[in-house]
Amino acid sequence: MTKKRIAIIGAGPSGLAQMRAFQSAANKGEEIPEIVCFEKQDNWGGLWNYTWRTGLDENGEPVHCSMYRYLWSNGPKEGLEFADYSFEEHFGKQIASYPPRAVLFDYIKGRVEKADVRKWIRFNSPIRWVEYNEDAGNFTVTVHDHAKDSTYKEDFDHVICASGHFSTPNVPFYPGFDSFNGRVLHAHDFRDAREFKGKDILILGASYSAEDIGSQCWKYGAKSITTSYRSAPMGFNWPDNWDEVPALEAVKGNTAFFADGTQKEVDAIILCTGYKHFFSFLPDDLRLKTANRLAAADLYKGVVFAHNPKMFYLGMQDQWFTFNMFDAQAWWVRDAIMGKIEIPSDKATLLADVKEREEREEASDDVKYAIKYQGDYVLELIEETDYPTFDVAGACQAFYEWKGHKAEDIMAFRNHSYKSVITGTMAPIHHTPWKDALDDSLEVYLQN
Amino acid sequence: MTKKRIAIIGAGPSGLAQMRAFQSAANKGEEIPEIVCFEKQDNWGGLWNYTWRTGLDENGEPVHCSMYRYLWSNGPKEGLEFADYSFEEHFGKQIASYPPRAVLFDYIKGRVEKADVRKWIRFNSPIRWVEYNEDAGNFTVTVHDHAKDSTYKEDFDHVICASGHFSTPNVPFYPGFDSFNGRVLHAHDFRDAREFKGKDILILGASYSAEDIGSQCWKYGAKSITTSYRSAPMGFNWPDNWDEVPALEAVKGNTAFFADGTQKEVDAIILCTGYKHFFSFLPDDLRLKTANRLAAADLYKGVVFAHNPKMFYLGMQDQWFTFNMFDAQAWWVRDAIMGKIEIPSDKATLLADVKEREEREEASDDVKYAIKYQGDYVLELIEETDYPTFDVAGACQAFYEWKGHKAEDIMAFRNHSYKSVITGTMAPIHHTPWKDALDDSLEVYLQN
Repeated sequence: MTKKRIAIIGAGPSGLAQMRAFQSAANKGEEIPEIVCFEKQDNWGGLWNYTWRTGLDENGEPVHCSMYRYLWSNGPKEGLEFADYSFEEHFGKQIASYPPRAVLFDYIKGRVEKADVRKWIRFNSPIRWVEYNEDAGNFTVTVHDHAKDSTYKEDFDHVICASGHFSTPNVPFYPGFDSFNGRVLHAHDFRDAREFKGKDILILGASYSAEDIGSQCWKYGAKSITTSYRSAPMGFNWPDNWDEVPALEAVKGNTAFFADGTQKEVDAIILCTGYKHFFSFLPDDLRLKTANRLAAADLYKGVVFAHNPKMFYLGMQDQWFTFNMFDAQAWWVRDAIMGKIEIPSDKATLLADVKEREEREEASDDVKYAIKYQGDYVLELIEETDYPTFDVAGACQAFYEWKGHKAEDIMAFRNHSYKSVITGTMAPIHHTPWKDALDDSLEVYLQN
Repeated sequence: MTKKRIAIIGAGPSGLAQMRAFQSAANKGEEIPEIVCFEKQDNWGGLWNYTWRTGLDENGEPVHCSMYRYLWSNGPKEGLEFADYSFEEHFGKQIASYPPRAVLFDYIKGRVEKADVRKWIRFNSPIRWVEYNEDAGNFTVTVHDHAKDSTYKEDFDHVICASGHFSTPNVPFYPGFDSFNGRVLHAHDFRDAREFKGKDILILGASYSAEDIGSQCWKYGAKSITTSYRSAPMGFNWPDNWDEVPALEAVKGNTAFFADGTQKEVDAIILCTGYKHFFSFLPDDLRLKTANRLAAADLYKGVVFAHNPKMFYLGMQDQWFTFNMFDAQAWWVRDAIMGKIEIPSDKATLLADVKEREEREEASDDVKYAIKYQGDYVLELIEETDYPTFDVAGACQAFYEWKGHKAEDIMAFRNHSYKSVITGTMAPIHHTPWKDALDDSLEVYLQN
């Protein structure tokens, strides 16, 4: 019998977790399938692979990166630490709790370099189309190899879609955007806060992007920040030059008009209006359609596509937990593919599982409930595989404390530190308060 | 016998010309094939369908538009007038020679509204993949209908690719771009010159985009313009605050360093570095690979794909002639599909035609030679169809004069006017010099 062939779409945190999961099994002497990972970019890391580019990349493909130069983790690293590869193992010491992008990228990279899985990845290789062959019971994947500028097809027994869902912006139109005399951009295209130094910035949105991009602009010298919400303000103790206003109604020239009758002259408008689950390479029978929520639609155990259980999705949920949740999912999917976990054969059972998760998510609006809900999900998956278990309750506790620290001082919450739930070590307080740490290079961050 | 089915990809100037060509035949009582035009955007006009959006559009698709708010034709309209639909027919009077975007869009729209071909277009419908079926001798086209968020396949006897080649930017990297403290953007993402008011702008490139985007920024109040060339300066008599410098070597912070050892502090960098022929929906056996030149590779008569003569391309050449060249091509392709023109059956003959065109293009570097070369091509095609012939030599003459006017005063060439080669009428001088005409709306432009 020939080996199964597995296609992983994307070499970001989820795709890398999947490769590490298979490599971990191989390391224990198990026979693993053939793995091919298709990555659109020229390097691994997914969203964490920063680029100055916006719009279309050097190959003409949509830029995947939604990160910006001075991004620091907006949650404590103690909530996302790999259970099989601690920060201490990677850096040789414990580090502070809110690492900048370059530090987290280095950490992600460290594990998969150690695992030696880069050889499985085909870079500069966007997927053009995937088709399920009813007769053969397998998938045909069409790929564009940009290095050769050539397309080809290969067949696989399983497809694992790990292409992320924070790369295709949701971009609303408001009257006057087409004649606004300045830059209108989505958070996806935000790169360097210094571009907005000395400017009056309008930000639409009231979630993480709005909060963090506004904070970036404030930190790097924007003249004023105005954030516009549709349902409720974020309600933090903002600096004096930061206002929260109700919904935008229209723009005229450089003047923005809000639902409460107020107006504001602004130089730039940044749309922190979220992202879409978008899969240009998938036909209807394989394509996930879901809201950005904890219980993603149509995914049994959060990973098996109920309409074709040979197809898997990783990391498609809204996220409190990230890297370690992707790990939990990847280990589970690996074991399902390798026959150690059985996927129920009737669709009704799969969909009943989805429904149960949805109802349980909807049972409360409380933030702590949501964090624990996702922590429970991570534990549920971990318990069915050999992924090293860890103190998920402790990780939840770090998230609760984080929420408290934000409420105390939104511009200072990153000055706190937490205890690793993997190694038990307390993180040091960072050497410089976040608001004063303008140089966020790896070298400077690690000077603790 | 069932009707042939024809897929046209793109409802821009070329695709619209193709529909008008078929409709014109139907109008004369001929039996025409079934036409389906697939358009990614939510309206027709291609590049001329302006949007404030950059990067990805409301459907998550790459934004097609490379136009900017204050774009005026950079060549005389007398060189692009439709032979079957004059400016005078559309506007009820002769108009000045360098119309702004909105005026040209209106003109393009007018002809196809009159022809009533909008019903053939499926909007919000990007092509995902095209495949040629050797056995059936036809094409299977896979489409994403964004209105229904659903994908489907349909078969066609011919595919006419009219998706343009000025939408996928060629974006080079220079050392320091990843840490530049301002905006780095390609011309494709340039929208409103007022964003750059009071700023020091660096433009890379020495062709039409560099010249025109620099002029826009100058007109709307940029503090200084620096254009950087690799081979030769544009050499116009620039305003005092416009410098031409040799190649960029690197950027550090906000300082740009050039090959001649000079440097300049800049606030933004605009890459006018050209576009790529890019077809994400085409496999190797159907995909055109060509430089941006007058004799495009692999296209017999400039339109028939030599490697599969059932596949056509429109408008893939570098362009002096535009709308009327697309017409000449569209009428010719129509007649080839309808059997009125015979395409040689052996590939060697098709490729010999390509080679002859390439050699003839390469015979001289002279600009007038190039203009006449393309004029001759337009005439060659027209003579083989019933497209109304026109004074192509006269159009060439307008181009020659235009070149002279630019050399005289680059900021005033648009104040000249030319004689229509379709109606023989002299265009009026525009009521306001271009540099003072800040309002470029259709209403204001037509106040002559």
